[in-house]
Amino acid sequence: MDLNVVILAAGKGTRMKSKLPKVLQPLAKQSLLAHVLKTSLSLNAAKVIVVYGHGGEQVKSDIGTGFSAAEVEWVEQSEQLGTGHAVLQALPHLNEGSRTLILYGDVPLISENTLTRFLNEVSPGDTGVLTVKLPDPTGYGRIVRDHAGVVREIVEEKDAGNEIRKIVEVNTGIMLADSKDLQQWLPSIDSNNAQGEYYLTDLVKIANQHDVPVIGCRVKDPIEVEGVNDKRQLARLERLYQRKLAEELMIAGATLADPARIDIRGQVNISQDCFIDVNVVFEGQVELGTGVQIGPNCVIIDSVIGAGSIIKANCVLENAQVGEGCDVGPFARLRPGTEMKRGARIGNFVETKNTIMEEGAKASHLTYLGDSEIGRDVNIGAGTITCNYDGVNKHKTIIGEGAFIGSNSALVAPVDIGAGATIGAGSTITKSAKENALTLTRAKQLTIESWKRPEKNSQ
Amino acid sequence: MDLNVVILAAGKGTRMKSKLPKVLQPLAKQSLLAHVLKTSLSLNAAKVIVVYGHGGEQVKSDIGTGFSAAEVEWVEQSEQLGTGHAVLQALPHLNEGSRTLILYGDVPLISENTLTRFLNEVSPGDTGVLTVKLPDPTGYGRIVRDHAGVVREIVEEKDAGNEIRKIVEVNTGIMLADSKDLQQWLPSIDSNNAQGEYYLTDLVKIANQHDVPVIGCRVKDPIEVEGVNDKRQLARLERLYQRKLAEELMIAGATLADPARIDIRGQVNISQDCFIDVNVVFEGQVELGTGVQIGPNCVIIDSVIGAGSIIKANCVLENAQVGEGCDVGPFARLRPGTEMKRGARIGNFVETKNTIMEEGAKASHLTYLGDSEIGRDVNIGAGTITCNYDGVNKHKTIIGEGAFIGSNSALVAPVDIGAGATIGAGSTITKSAKENALTLTRAKQLTIESWKRPEKNSQ
Amino acid sequence: MDLNVVILAAGKGTRMKSKLPKVLQPLAKQSLLAHVLKTSLSLNAAKVIVVYGHGGEQVKSDIGTGFSAAEVEWVEQSEQLGTGHAVLQALPHLNEGSRTLILYGDVPLISENTLTRFLNEVSPGDTGVLTVKLPDPTGYGRIVRDHAGVVREIVEEKDAGNEIRKIVEVNTGIMLADSKDLQQWLPSIDSNNAQGEYYLTDLVKIANQHDVPVIGCRVKDPIEVEGVNDKRQLARLERLYQRKLAEELMIAGATLADPARIDIRGQVNISQDCFIDVNVVFEGQVELGTGVQIGPNCVIIDSVIGAGSIIKANCVLENAQVGEGCDVGPFARLRPGTEMKRGARIGNFVETKNTIMEEGAKASHLTYLGDSEIGRDVNIGAGTITCNYDGVNKHKTIIGEGAFIGSNSALVAPVDIGAGATIGAGSTITKSAKENALTLTRAKQLTIESWKRPEKNSQ
Repeated sequence: MDLNVVILAAGKGTRMKSKLPKVLQPLAKQSLLAHVLKTSLSLNAAKVIVVYGHGGEQVKSDIGTGFSAAEVEWVEQSEQLGTGHAVLQALPHLNEGSRTLILYGDVPLISENTLTRFLNEVSPGDTGVLTVKLPDPTGYGRIVRDHAGVVREIVEEKDAGNEIRKIVEVNTGIMLADSKDLQQWLPSIDSNNAQGEYYLTDLVKIANQHDVPVIGCRVKDPIEVEGVNDKRQLARLERLYQRKLAEELMIAGATLADPARIDIRGQVNISQDCFIDVNVVFEGQVELGTGVQIGPNCVIIDSVIGAGSIIKANCVLENAQVGEGCDVGPFARLRPGTEMKRGARIGNFVETKNTIMEEGAKASHLTYLGDSEIGRDVNIGAGTITCNYDGVNKHKTIIGEGAFIGSNSALVAPVDIGAGATIGAGSTITKSAKENALTLTRAKQLTIESWKRPEKNSQ
Repeated sequence: MDLNVVILAAGKGTRMKSKLPKVLQPLAKQSLLAHVLKTSLSLNAAKVIVVYGHGGEQVKSDIGTGFSAAEVEWVEQSEQLGTGHAVLQALPHLNEGSRTLILYGDVPLISENTLTRFLNEVSPGDTGVLTVKLPDPTGYGRIVRDHAGVVREIVEEKDAGNEIRKIVEVNTGIMLADSKDLQQWLPSIDSNNAQGEYYLTDLVKIANQHDVPVIGCRVKDPIEVEGVNDKRQLARLERLYQRKLAEELMIAGATLADPARIDIRGQVNISQDCFIDVNVVFEGQVELGTGVQIGPNCVIIDSVIGAGSIIKANCVLENAQVGEGCDVGPFARLRPGTEMKRGARIGNFVETKNTIMEEGAKASHLTYLGDSEIGRDVNIGAGTITCNYDGVNKHKTIIGEGAFIGSNSALVAPVDIGAGATIGAGSTITKSAKENALTLTRAKQLTIESWKRPEKNSQ
Repeated sequence: MDLNVVILAAGKGTRMKSKLPKVLQPLAKQSLLAHVLKTSLSLNAAKVIVVYGHGGEQVKSDIGTGFSAAEVEWVEQSEQLGTGHAVLQALPHLNEGSRTLILYGDVPLISENTLTRFLNEVSPGDTGVLTVKLPDPTGYGRIVRDHAGVVREIVEEKDAGNEIRKIVEVNTGIMLADSKDLQQWLPSIDSNNAQGEYYLTDLVKIANQHDVPVIGCRVKDPIEVEGVNDKRQLARLERLYQRKLAEELMIAGATLADPARIDIRGQVNISQDCFIDVNVVFEGQVELGTGVQIGPNCVIIDSVIGAGSIIKANCVLENAQVGEGCDVGPFARLRPGTEMKRGARIGNFVETKNTIMEEGAKASHLTYLGDSEIGRDVNIGAGTITCNYDGVNKHKTIIGEGAFIGSNSALVAPVDIGAGATIGAGSTITKSAKENALTLTRAKQLTIESWKRPEKNSQ
């Protein structure tokens, strides 16, 4: 039986105090809705429908960059009249003969595992409601089951007597039903309640009226069904999510100095014996080879770090390829297009961009390497600058194998430094330098004995 | 009825193991006493009296830098003979016809809200005692109320029977009474107890003897009445206070990557949609415009950051004005007097001091700009140094609109670079450079073919 | 009576998912086994025997670097047949007339205090078992005591009836017995159980059979007897251990901005009134003088910091000696062999290595000082580089008292700068500079009026 997923994403989220619609708020640098969409797509749904409302164009355009039009169908809910009304908008779009899972764009951590179990536990033809036990269920709709365990009723707090209030199993709002049942039942829901809204919860009553069994499937971890309404809840889920990712990394074998001080905004794949020190932030897709060590306070974005490499404290890497046995930092910044081959070293206060460091090449201090190719075993002296930008265009610097660039040199691109060449310290090199020779620019060293030091201004 | 506040601040705080008197210990970079003084002044008290003792001169001088002499009156308690004795010293200074609130210099987080409620709930003529319910009241004086809720007695742990010990409402020490009552009653307190001290608590008994109702007003959050006696308690309150500030920021709409990893030592005012990443430290007065993003591990002191600006990882800003749409860092240090106009950019390993960057000006790498004016759309090449200091005096560097400073240049101030000028890479500029022309210092590039590389010393 | 300690360290630790044997996993940068060894040696044991197995050579070689052969005796357990079997291997090595304490290489936080108490509470001739009360004892062997408190039995979970299961005091595995008793009893233990292993626990039964009293000594803090089997438990113990060290620092008088955000991997000795900001990592042996302030995100390794010195945000120090009243950072990197005398200053983006800064010397910005001696009150301009490396050898730079090094200078070592000398900005100094004179290299400043800026490539 085909699966359709309807994601309710129309809420404004006033308490977020943001120009962004609620479902676009970021969790681990991805929107809440994107989390739910990703999980939905993992279920192999035949169709995923997002019911949008507030900030609809913004939501569609933002999500459109991460998900294809083929994956997501958009349905507008122009007025927000409750969850029942929201699903109602999606009814005409449901596949014939399908069943429909209803999720929420602001409940981001529902997992594929839980939903797969839910889909399995609820037989086609039955109605399903995902439930959760809460230590303090106050305020939530209680799940009333009969002796066979079938859900007979969801009783809201205000309608609940003392006995019902003692029930700690509550409704999460996540439901599953045959699409044709939804199409038949939903139009009959009314809004005769204090808020004047159409509640999806009423489906439970209707299903019972039609003698359709309502299966209550309980989620184990309440985090999965927590919604986000303000920035405090957002931060809470962010930390719970990060903690979960940290646990996964540790189960995979990573040694974390502090699981409460790591942030993963994307995916980190590790090999054996990786050590990640405190306060590291990962973004995008990061791969760590065997024995990689990441020092404290590093930011690593979309990068690959080879086996045995060490990234020391306070480094920032983005779109960098670090080979095996490399040594980076502290205080190094590897910008996009940096590629370090085996055993290369980049030291403190060094910035690289669009630069290849061949095996064994070193740039240890206070250097900028942009748009350059640094040959095997080249030594770049402290304070070396590749002048790759003439104000309008970028040019390349190519340094041959084994060259030695004296400290405080400026290499004005385009320029070639030959293999084995030596550049004298303090030179400004504008023309290509011959291989195996010494090239330099050097004014004569003068001493002015009569010179007097400046005196302190009187003021 | 006038309000007088008496703050007891005479304790030494031996367990702090510090040269600083206890009330000068810092919480969020402000002394404990300063917190209490600030809250006291927010109550519009006619008079605030600090009873000092240990380290009195140090306390007076430290507090004197933040509060005016008109705001605070100082009374010495030369011997520390208990809280009753401390307040006794202040009696001659109380305003006639006032009532007096008694606070503690080492109970820093008592809030204006709570005290305002306390002042409202206790009618003039009555005596008030601020109480708190503790999960574990062991060791504290229990509040005994009669059927009408009036406080009849405060029973110390050692005098308490089993029934009394079950009471979880305890005395906080914070009291309120008519000044004339204090003046009448306090001299009659005795020190017939194990410690030989005069206890302020005895006022409750005396008030009851005089048929003055003692109103117990309960503070909701125990943190507000926690005292500080050692560095562990200090750290505990620091974190609780920081958590509270983080919550306030989130309620105001800020997105925090981790509310447990932000420090605010002063005040941060935010606009809509600010994002603050992990481990940011704010000090002094900081303003963040709409959509500002602060990267991880930044320290931001007394600075203003305009709408849409991004401060990347690991930056340190102090007394800086960052305009709208600016891009700073990573690894940038903006020192006092830095002013970035709209769209200016300061990149990695760049330090600025007393420098204006006009709109669109850029200094992207490894640069020091001191005492300078950088014109609109100027491009400062990597490794540029303004030589602003001649060993005794500082001089200005002025760079005209659209100039291009080649990499690795030294600009020896005072010096003017004309609008549209280009400075050749590696130059040392000591005289003003003409506008729209190329200016440089450049020795001829030489190649020495016969040159032999040094050989490894044998040793 | 001599004490022998037997440490069981043969486990593989499959769940660690590591090439390292379990007991070599790091806690605070020291192996688990090293923690246990250090504690064992603190008990003045006549002999410490480590029973090794998996990765034995690696364990022996790793431990061998921190502990001398005289301190540790190694015994192999070639097959892992249970704790009883492990101790059996050590029996022939026990001193005659001694008693033997059995510890575990993967239970790292057992304290000297607890073990000393254990050794005192168990009289020679008796058998001792260290116990602990757990909120949830499920899965652990319950301690059954008789009315006199003597331990009669340890009942494993699977053998426990309902009454026994209610017992919350459980076995920690740490035991103490006369060596001759062990030698007599252990060979009689059998492996008739589900796992087919020889359990040390059986000693309790045997001791009772021999009417030897079994004394149960209870450890107060369960952390001390927690074992480590996977990376999550390792991280948990790391944080608990770090928290304990943070508490100790605070008790000693340090002010910590956040006790949850400090890492001590070694030992930190503090004086009065030290302040340590958030996210500081200490490694090795660190000494902080009176009033030292360490800024956020610093890494301090094997260094001494003198009274009144300030280390600002984001610094990395290793093997550095910082004198009194020095000012370091932010963004400074002091590498091994750095020695700052009183009042010296090292500023942002400055790296030093094997360098002495005499009193009052300053290097404030973007500088590399390697293999150098910087005289009293010398001012090193921004962008100064000591060119200490010629590609094969390192050479020294010596700068005399009061010299002034102009910005962006390269000092090509070996080179001497005389006292009081001034080096012109942008110079490359290859020969010694005379004292009290101005020395410089400087090409003439030229202006090329006809010069046209490059144009944007069409592409």
